[in-house]
Amino acid sequence: MNNVTAVLARFLVDSRLEDIPAGVRHEAARAIVNWSGCAVGGAGHETITRALAAIAPFQGPPQATVFGRSERLDAPHAALLNGMSSHLLDFDDTHARAVHPSAPVLPALFAFAEWHRISGAELLHAFVLGVEAECRIGLSVFPEHHDLGWHITGTAGVFGAAAAIGKLLGLSAQQMTWALGIAATQAAGLQEVFGSMSKSLHPGRAAQNGFMAAMLARQGFTSSEQAIEGKRGFGRVLSTRFDANTITAELGQHYELSQNMYKPYACGLVVHAVIDACIALREQHALRPEQIEHIKLIVSPRTLQMTNHPTPSTGLEGKFSVFHVAAAAIVFGTIGETQFSDDCVLDARVLAVRQRITVTVDEALSRTQATVRLHLTDGRAIEHRVEHALGTIGRPMSDRDLDTKFHGLTDEVLGAGPSGELLDLCWSVATLADAGSIARAAARPSPSA
Amino acid sequence: MNNVTAVLARFLVDSRLEDIPAGVRHEAARAIVNWSGCAVGGAGHETITRALAAIAPFQGPPQATVFGRSERLDAPHAALLNGMSSHLLDFDDTHARAVHPSAPVLPALFAFAEWHRISGAELLHAFVLGVEAECRIGLSVFPEHHDLGWHITGTAGVFGAAAAIGKLLGLSAQQMTWALGIAATQAAGLQEVFGSMSKSLHPGRAAQNGFMAAMLARQGFTSSEQAIEGKRGFGRVLSTRFDANTITAELGQHYELSQNMYKPYACGLVVHAVIDACIALREQHALRPEQIEHIKLIVSPRTLQMTNHPTPSTGLEGKFSVFHVAAAAIVFGTIGETQFSDDCVLDARVLAVRQRITVTVDEALSRTQATVRLHLTDGRAIEHRVEHALGTIGRPMSDRDLDTKFHGLTDEVLGAGPSGELLDLCWSVATLADAGSIARAAARPSPSA
Repeated sequence: MNNVTAVLARFLVDSRLEDIPAGVRHEAARAIVNWSGCAVGGAGHETITRALAAIAPFQGPPQATVFGRSERLDAPHAALLNGMSSHLLDFDDTHARAVHPSAPVLPALFAFAEWHRISGAELLHAFVLGVEAECRIGLSVFPEHHDLGWHITGTAGVFGAAAAIGKLLGLSAQQMTWALGIAATQAAGLQEVFGSMSKSLHPGRAAQNGFMAAMLARQGFTSSEQAIEGKRGFGRVLSTRFDANTITAELGQHYELSQNMYKPYACGLVVHAVIDACIALREQHALRPEQIEHIKLIVSPRTLQMTNHPTPSTGLEGKFSVFHVAAAAIVFGTIGETQFSDDCVLDARVLAVRQRITVTVDEALSRTQATVRLHLTDGRAIEHRVEHALGTIGRPMSDRDLDTKFHGLTDEVLGAGPSGELLDLCWSVATLADAGSIARAAARPSPSA
Repeated sequence: MNNVTAVLARFLVDSRLEDIPAGVRHEAARAIVNWSGCAVGGAGHETITRALAAIAPFQGPPQATVFGRSERLDAPHAALLNGMSSHLLDFDDTHARAVHPSAPVLPALFAFAEWHRISGAELLHAFVLGVEAECRIGLSVFPEHHDLGWHITGTAGVFGAAAAIGKLLGLSAQQMTWALGIAATQAAGLQEVFGSMSKSLHPGRAAQNGFMAAMLARQGFTSSEQAIEGKRGFGRVLSTRFDANTITAELGQHYELSQNMYKPYACGLVVHAVIDACIALREQHALRPEQIEHIKLIVSPRTLQMTNHPTPSTGLEGKFSVFHVAAAAIVFGTIGETQFSDDCVLDARVLAVRQRITVTVDEALSRTQATVRLHLTDGRAIEHRVEHALGTIGRPMSDRDLDTKFHGLTDEVLGAGPSGELLDLCWSVATLADAGSIARAAARPSPSA
């Protein structure tokens, strides 16, 4: 198929809001709640502080909010910073098969919404389409593209932002084709930088460059007509396999956003089932740490392989220790960013539990399954098995779960009252006359104000 | 070798101006002359006008000149625009084996120089180092990287800009390693967009993103320590072959800038020998077009394959027609942008000559060799053979040739007087107290001034 880019562009241009099923619209609101919480929660990180210092001398007009901060930036720079902050805790959403969908797209949309007034419904529609474009393009080269070493959230994300902003700008099909081409030729992001601040740059630049790709296309800035499928295009240059059909098959008949997942815990998916089981045992048995004689974790091979770190000494190491997360879940009953502070990893109560843990692999378990078996000091043995970790497609986080996660990320930054107001605005996105009101509500009052 | 990025960073940080041989410094001045002419000459193109319109709403402080225009932009945006304008005529310099060296690096440096005062010698030194980094990194994956479909001027260019600006910022070796990593993870640019405005975006974004990579690294924004050589790094993800040794071997013992070439004619290298021969015959024999009975061009296989277009009807088609360039060279005695206007391609005098041309392939000729044989109306046959096209390493353009090319590009834009002043400043770069004076001299007076 030699017109994939043009077919996708035509779909994006022709889509009407009423084409989007109600369930997908609700999923969009859920994604906006989750993403906004992550952006506010990540905004205080030194990654953001350092990036702000670097761009400060070159700032344009103060058009858009940096979520969770008092700075206002020109719209593309706000897209950059919000793309970074929303991804840097590794707490943002995940498509069931690839790509973190929201981090490259929503920052571009909220920056646009404060610059040019649009309704919440318009933002929601453009968001669904942006996710559709980035996920389909990502899946067309997945997993080979990923296995080569590309960070697909950057490489596919730039298409999502371009498609979303292109929709808001009312691009023609020709212009949308160019916007996708301008996005394609900026697709970037290497897994080699994982573990450094540069990882968060990927969705940030994707949001910023996708935003500008659409702006350029609107001015008649030309590109290839076949930037995705061409011989020297995205699909063939950045992957050893490219399946054009993934991009165009059943366009509009199902939406990739319905495959979206949200993480309840601020760490890798592979330990989520263990956390679920520990929290369930704690709650069901009103467990106190001192009752525990021994803990046995039965996990998937991949889980142990990625998190076999019995004696972490920093918060970051704690994220990659199934021993720490299990102990912290039993002690605190929740696993948020607080549980990955250096203090928490060295907390005597956590250490006392951690030392009683052993781990066994069960080849039959998937990475989102686990069993936890406790031997108590009174001689009892209790056990909990998790078939689907909370947040996976088989057992999604409820809207209420998302509220709890949101508050955990935002209350300390914005205060509980303003957090609640922001949360209400996110849930009501579909009916807002001014989508920018969400971004403005995410601003932290200036310290000097 | 698992510390290539760090070794290169250390070299860049430790380099002193006095380490750079005089010949390389003079080549830097030649490159600055050539690049400045190209930037001024390209600045009126609609590619630039459209890009300026797209970024206008988001402009920061007016820190830096767009060469050949009256607009002043924030420094990173000026780097973007000047990177685009200097490349879009396909008239900028070419390393003997890969990469257009100047277009990604000099725009970043001149934008920096107007923002933070530096001497001409500092700019020159940083330029030599930027070219060294981008060419060595480009050559480490060449030609496989190119053959995959990457535009190496974009992908390698971003390292050049990061290295050059990093040098001016006085980054530590650790920071320079990060700057190269931040550059690596933004490396982008697909050949699929060749023939569209998006091609020029590659050196533009390389300049802008490399500039910001260094700014981020200075703020302590971290990246991988092995972004070039790592398993998921630039060399292995963007190429099927990576030769680390190319980057580190004999660093400081020779400089890639000494392999730089400049084009005398505003079209592909493959027809330059034909143009040389036609101009030589015209001059040696004081030829008038009406004396010509028949013209035979004897060219390399690749030359005919790429430019076998006997009846072009637009200026762009004329660039890819060996028939047009030969005819225009005989009629006008020069081949600049003017000879690729639609008017010139349809000029009756050019058509009259063009119709008398036949082309033959000689398998023994390289693409920079040609023979032109003329049969005159008085019965004489005259012939000229070109062994090395003007501008190749075997027969470089003289400084005087570069002056002529420069004036051809800038006189109409800036006026002959200001062009001469700019040219003088470029040649004297090594002794300028303020390198930014070159950029300021390249500004076109505001129409309203």
